[in-house]
Amino acid sequence: MTLDDARARDRVDPLAFARDRFSIPEGLTYLDGNSLGALPRATAERVDTLVLDQWGKDLIAGWNDHGWIDLPKRVAARLAPIVGANADELLVADSTSVCLFKLLSAAVAARQGRSEILTVEGNFPSDRYVVRGLADMLGLNLRTVALADLAEAIGKNTAAVTLTHVDYRSGVRADMAAINAAARTAGALAVWDLSHSAGAVALGLHRDGCELAVGCGYKYLNGGPGAPAFLYVASHLQDALHPQPQGWLGHADPFAFADHYRPADGIARFITGTPSVIALAALDAGLAAFEGIAMADVEAKAQALVRFFLDAVGDALPLHGPTDLGERGSHVCLVHDEAYAIMQALIARGVVGDFRQPNLMRFGFTPLYTRYEDCWRAADALRQVLDKREYDEPRFRDLKAVT
Amino acid sequence: MTLDDARARDRVDPLAFARDRFSIPEGLTYLDGNSLGALPRATAERVDTLVLDQWGKDLIAGWNDHGWIDLPKRVAARLAPIVGANADELLVADSTSVCLFKLLSAAVAARQGRSEILTVEGNFPSDRYVVRGLADMLGLNLRTVALADLAEAIGKNTAAVTLTHVDYRSGVRADMAAINAAARTAGALAVWDLSHSAGAVALGLHRDGCELAVGCGYKYLNGGPGAPAFLYVASHLQDALHPQPQGWLGHADPFAFADHYRPADGIARFITGTPSVIALAALDAGLAAFEGIAMADVEAKAQALVRFFLDAVGDALPLHGPTDLGERGSHVCLVHDEAYAIMQALIARGVVGDFRQPNLMRFGFTPLYTRYEDCWRAADALRQVLDKREYDEPRFRDLKAVT
Repeated sequence: MTLDDARARDRVDPLAFARDRFSIPEGLTYLDGNSLGALPRATAERVDTLVLDQWGKDLIAGWNDHGWIDLPKRVAARLAPIVGANADELLVADSTSVCLFKLLSAAVAARQGRSEILTVEGNFPSDRYVVRGLADMLGLNLRTVALADLAEAIGKNTAAVTLTHVDYRSGVRADMAAINAAARTAGALAVWDLSHSAGAVALGLHRDGCELAVGCGYKYLNGGPGAPAFLYVASHLQDALHPQPQGWLGHADPFAFADHYRPADGIARFITGTPSVIALAALDAGLAAFEGIAMADVEAKAQALVRFFLDAVGDALPLHGPTDLGERGSHVCLVHDEAYAIMQALIARGVVGDFRQPNLMRFGFTPLYTRYEDCWRAADALRQVLDKREYDEPRFRDLKAVT
Repeated sequence: MTLDDARARDRVDPLAFARDRFSIPEGLTYLDGNSLGALPRATAERVDTLVLDQWGKDLIAGWNDHGWIDLPKRVAARLAPIVGANADELLVADSTSVCLFKLLSAAVAARQGRSEILTVEGNFPSDRYVVRGLADMLGLNLRTVALADLAEAIGKNTAAVTLTHVDYRSGVRADMAAINAAARTAGALAVWDLSHSAGAVALGLHRDGCELAVGCGYKYLNGGPGAPAFLYVASHLQDALHPQPQGWLGHADPFAFADHYRPADGIARFITGTPSVIALAALDAGLAAFEGIAMADVEAKAQALVRFFLDAVGDALPLHGPTDLGERGSHVCLVHDEAYAIMQALIARGVVGDFRQPNLMRFGFTPLYTRYEDCWRAADALRQVLDKREYDEPRFRDLKAVT
C-alpha cells in the first residue's frame, strides 16, 4: 500500500470532483469532518450577501423580501434527499440537544401514562444528559440497556426510545428498521440522533420506518462551528405532537401575536424562537455541497475510504467496534493507551483526527472531500509516530480541551 | 418644529458619533431597530474573519486556537455593562424563548411544592406560549394578572413570576425593583424578559435586585436577524439551579464525555448544546458598538428622541401607553384604525416602523444611530400620509407578514 496506490484510487474516484466545493488548507490531512466539517467554498460569499446586501441594505424588510422567514424550511428542503425524507418533515433550528428535548417532550406527552424512557449504553453523552433531565423533570423512569437488547426491551410501558444511529466512538450503526418496527409494535416512539450519520451514510428515514429524529449541522453537513441542528417528524405524527418549549414561530399565526398558543399545522409547530438567519445561510451553503450527489455513492466511498485506511494501518493498532464495514458509519476509532498523546503528535504532523475518552484515536472520513491520499498520509504518519515514539514528547501530553 | 430644529439637535448630540459605527442606507429613516437592529460596520469583517481565517484555515483547532469555546462568555462580558450585571452572570446562546424556558424550568424546580406561575396581561405572546407550555407540562397553574396588581399577587404558592420589562406595544416599563422585592419577600423567583429594554434603557440588574432574566440579541443589541439571545442568573443563585434542557456544554467536564450529568459551577451550567459561533461573532460585533458609551446617556437620548418625535407628531394621533417618558422604554405606538395601511404607506416613503395588532404603528428609537432628523422625517411623512389619505391606496392594504 503506497502513496501511488492511493493516488491511483483518487484518479478514478467518481466523487473526486466534490473536493473542489471545499476550501481545504494545503498540506492538511483533515480526518475530523465528523466533528467539524470543512468550509465550503460558497459559504463566505453566501454569508456576506446575507450580512451586507440583505441585512445591511434592507434591514427588517429582509424577513419578507429575502425570505428569511422561510429559510428553515428551504434549508430543510436541501436536507431532505440527504436523509431520505420529505422536505416538509424536516426543520432546521436550535442545537441538537434542544431539538432532542423538543421531540422527546412531545413523544412522552403523546404517550402519557407510560412511565419509561429507554436508551442504550454508551449513547452519546449529551443525549443522555438531555433525556436524564427530561425524565427527572417529569418523574419518568430512564432505563438503559445494551443496544443488542433494545428491540426486545421496548414494552407496553415504554413511552419513548432514544439512541444514536451511529455511535460516536465505536462507529456501530444501529439497525434502524428493526428498532423502529419494535417500537411501533409496542406503541412507543423512537427518537434517533443522526449526528454521526447524516451526510455520511445513505439514510432512508422513510424506508426504515423512522418517525422522529434529530441531527447535527456542523459535522458531515458542513454548516460551520455550532451550526443549527435539524429535526425530523414523520408527516403522520406531526399534528398529534406538542413539543416544548413552544414559542411564537411555531404558532399557527405568529404575527397575530394572539393571547393563546395555537400550534401551526405540520412541521412548523416544531420551531420555537427565531433562529439565526446568518447561521442558517451558512448551513444552507454547507448542504448545497451535496447537490447532485447520490447518498449511495457517498456511503460507498465512505466504506472504501475506511477500508483503505484500515488496510494501510494494518494490524499496528486494534480497531474499536465491528470489523464489518456494513455495520459502521464513516469514522473509526483505534485503541492505544497513549491515544491522546499520539493524536497530538499526529496533529503536529498535519494529520487531524481527535481523541475520545478513554483511549481512542478517532478518524472521520468525509466522502465529499477526503481523498485516498489523505487515508494513506494519516496511516503513514501514525506508523511514524508509533515507530519513533513521538508521543513520549512532553509537548504532546498536555491536556487541552479537544472537541 | 422644523427639519432645521432637528438638525440643530443632532449637531449637539453627544452620541452623534456612534451612528458612524453602523451602516445605514442613504435616505432611509429607520425606526425599527427595536425589531431588528441595524448592521454595525464591523460585523461583516468580523464574520469573514471567523469563516475564512478561523474555520477555513484552522478547522477543528479553532475551538482552542481562536477561543470559540469561550465565545459565549466573552460576548457576555461585553453585555455586562449594558445591562448592569457582572460578566459571569451572563451567557449568550439559544433563542429568547429557549432561554426563558431554561430559567423558568430551573425556577419552578427550585421552588418545588409551589404550584403557581404568575404572569401579566399583555405580556409578550411568545413568553406566554413558553410559560403556558411549561405549566402544562408540569401540571402547574398559570395565573395572569394586571401589571399594577402583580406585586401584591405574588404569594406563598408562587414559584415563579415572569414578565417583560418594557412592554412590546405600550412601551410601559415595569418597576423592576419593586417587583423583585415583592418576589423575594414571598420567596418566589422573578424571570424578566429584557428584549425591549436591553441596549435602550439604563438597566441595573444588580441595582434593581434582579435574579433571573433573558433578552434578545437582534433588537437594540444589533446582533443580526435571529441573533443568539442572552440569559442572566444572579451569582448567588447559579449553583442552586438546574435548567432544562441540560446538555453537554453545561457539564462540569464536557470533554470527559462522562456517563452522568454533573453541572458546571456558575453560569456555565446554563449552556445546553453548541451555539453557532458565526452568530456569536456577529453578536459580538453588535455589542462592540456600545464600547465606551454610558447607558445613562443612551437612555437620556432615547427619551429625548421619543419626546422630539411626539412633539413633531403633535396631537394628530393618540399615543398608546403612558405619557410620562420615565415610565417607558424607547419605542412608542400610535393608534389608528388604519394602522397597517398607514405603516405600509410610510415604508413606501422610506420611513420604516412596524405594525402591531390590532391598530398600532410602532416606532423604535435606537440612540446609537437614530437622529433627531429621523424623528422629524418620520413625523413629517406621517402627517403627509394622513393628510393625503395615502393609506387608502389598495397596494398598502395587502397583508404581508410583518416582523
